[in-house]
Amino acid sequence: MNTGKFELQLLGCSAALPAFNRLPSAQVLNIHEKLFLIDCGEGTQFQLKKYGIRKSRIDHIFISHLHGDHVFGLPGLITSYNLMDRKEDLNIYAPQGIEEMITQILSFSSGELHYKICFHNITDFQGKIIFEDEHVKVKSLPLNHKIPTSGFLFEEKLARRKLNLQAINELGISKEYWKQIEEGFDISLSDHSKISNSQLVLDQQKTRKYAYCSDTRYELSLIPYLKNISLLYHETTYLDELSLKAQDNGHSTAIQAAKIALAANVKTLLTGHYSSRYEKLDPILKECQSIFENTILGTEGLIIKVDS
Amino acid sequence: MNTGKFELQLLGCSAALPAFNRLPSAQVLNIHEKLFLIDCGEGTQFQLKKYGIRKSRIDHIFISHLHGDHVFGLPGLITSYNLMDRKEDLNIYAPQGIEEMITQILSFSSGELHYKICFHNITDFQGKIIFEDEHVKVKSLPLNHKIPTSGFLFEEKLARRKLNLQAINELGISKEYWKQIEEGFDISLSDHSKISNSQLVLDQQKTRKYAYCSDTRYELSLIPYLKNISLLYHETTYLDELSLKAQDNGHSTAIQAAKIALAANVKTLLTGHYSSRYEKLDPILKECQSIFENTILGTEGLIIKVDS
Repeated sequence: MNTGKFELQLLGCSAALPAFNRLPSAQVLNIHEKLFLIDCGEGTQFQLKKYGIRKSRIDHIFISHLHGDHVFGLPGLITSYNLMDRKEDLNIYAPQGIEEMITQILSFSSGELHYKICFHNITDFQGKIIFEDEHVKVKSLPLNHKIPTSGFLFEEKLARRKLNLQAINELGISKEYWKQIEEGFDISLSDHSKISNSQLVLDQQKTRKYAYCSDTRYELSLIPYLKNISLLYHETTYLDELSLKAQDNGHSTAIQAAKIALAANVKTLLTGHYSSRYEKLDPILKECQSIFENTILGTEGLIIKVDS
Repeated sequence: MNTGKFELQLLGCSAALPAFNRLPSAQVLNIHEKLFLIDCGEGTQFQLKKYGIRKSRIDHIFISHLHGDHVFGLPGLITSYNLMDRKEDLNIYAPQGIEEMITQILSFSSGELHYKICFHNITDFQGKIIFEDEHVKVKSLPLNHKIPTSGFLFEEKLARRKLNLQAINELGISKEYWKQIEEGFDISLSDHSKISNSQLVLDQQKTRKYAYCSDTRYELSLIPYLKNISLLYHETTYLDELSLKAQDNGHSTAIQAAKIALAANVKTLLTGHYSSRYEKLDPILKECQSIFENTILGTEGLIIKVDS
């Protein structure tokens, strides 16, 4: 059992033209009580408020690409932080151009910020580590859209191994070795005997992983990155009857998202980024489930606990 | 009785930091079924949807100034129009800088627009006519804020005068004069006798006028422009205990707004642009009414029919 929190909340599940009370792309991921904002469409600051998420807890924002429905909430959020007298650095991870875009907008409107924005340009979209702390690594993913676009893979780090004290005592292993064992090493005793790490620790936790894939065409090269992960958000902008339109516009159909989920053997598929032509979303869910049974229909406000 | 519609709906009544479900500044004014959008804070396109206002009906947007809480909804609205395949020109009236700001944002995000945006720079804030059609003139107003800021005075034009046919027949005035009479002229008959226009038309309609004054310090030079108007929206960011802060930040208190309304002898005062420090707004209303009784507390969604 993993103990730290690993929980996703959806703030916006609409494609570019908002409709039917759906808002543009934004999600909040809580990993061990650190909040990561993923994309920031117009209205994100209102959605954070609506769902009781304190925006001051967010220090890291991941932007997949510079289309308006993924970034037009940033200027307002940044300005609100300034009015709230934020002092902490704000980190923004995004494909090239975000710094220029934000700097120019703010130059017209907000005067000088009282806090620092650290822009982290994503230039390598092939699984490059773009953020890391004690609990999680975040890697880029090679999405296939009309402009440079990165997905994000949030990989929980394995917790420090838990000692199997019964085995350790039975084997008479002294305390000086315990740190090595916790760190995952096999140990060599003074009599040159070797004992494998797996004999000395309790059953390992399984790593929880969440991948965010929006916006993207049907892209088979994503599959190796998504192998066996716990939760995959993959855009489902259209139903399959519009697969040509999807290809033209740099998007995927529900069937295509489900095929990726199946091929990657993920645990759960989560849908989103719905075209404004669909008022009811059941057909999207049905199409996915015809290929990949364990699909959840993403809707604004939905909370999903990510299991291992 | 005026017959054409002259109706205001409030979309956002918050100051810069949105709070308590209040949204940043935006209003829609319907004059004879033409819709004018006044300011466009973040979320304006969602508010239009919420209140059943078809955004495609808007061809004229008036922006008071370039602070984010008055413009950050524009990029999303402009992009949505593009996705909806808008063909009609969109007119944006604003102080200098708006074209550069919007052009730069869109260059990162939205590709080429399928329709034209006509930017109309406001450079003269002293009652200059910035828009005119058959029903209305819109004039700039000299607001006093931290950056160049224009208020807007919407003045209904007098309808064509209605002939008093009984008087005309009694005086034996022939049809060739009727057009002159409708246009407001006195007439000289062939026998050189003069008859004043007022004898020949029915009672005149009174002009309806609406003024939008946000954001502004307490500014006495506004009063002549606002004399005897039907409805005045004047920002009430703070209660009077914060009058120094208001002065520093380029805003007004409730008392100050009411003093302007009283001095200008307007019919009705409408409040708005509330600081995030106030959850309950009753004290704002009370302060206004202590000076100017006929005050309406502005709230999101409120519709006000503008009387003459």
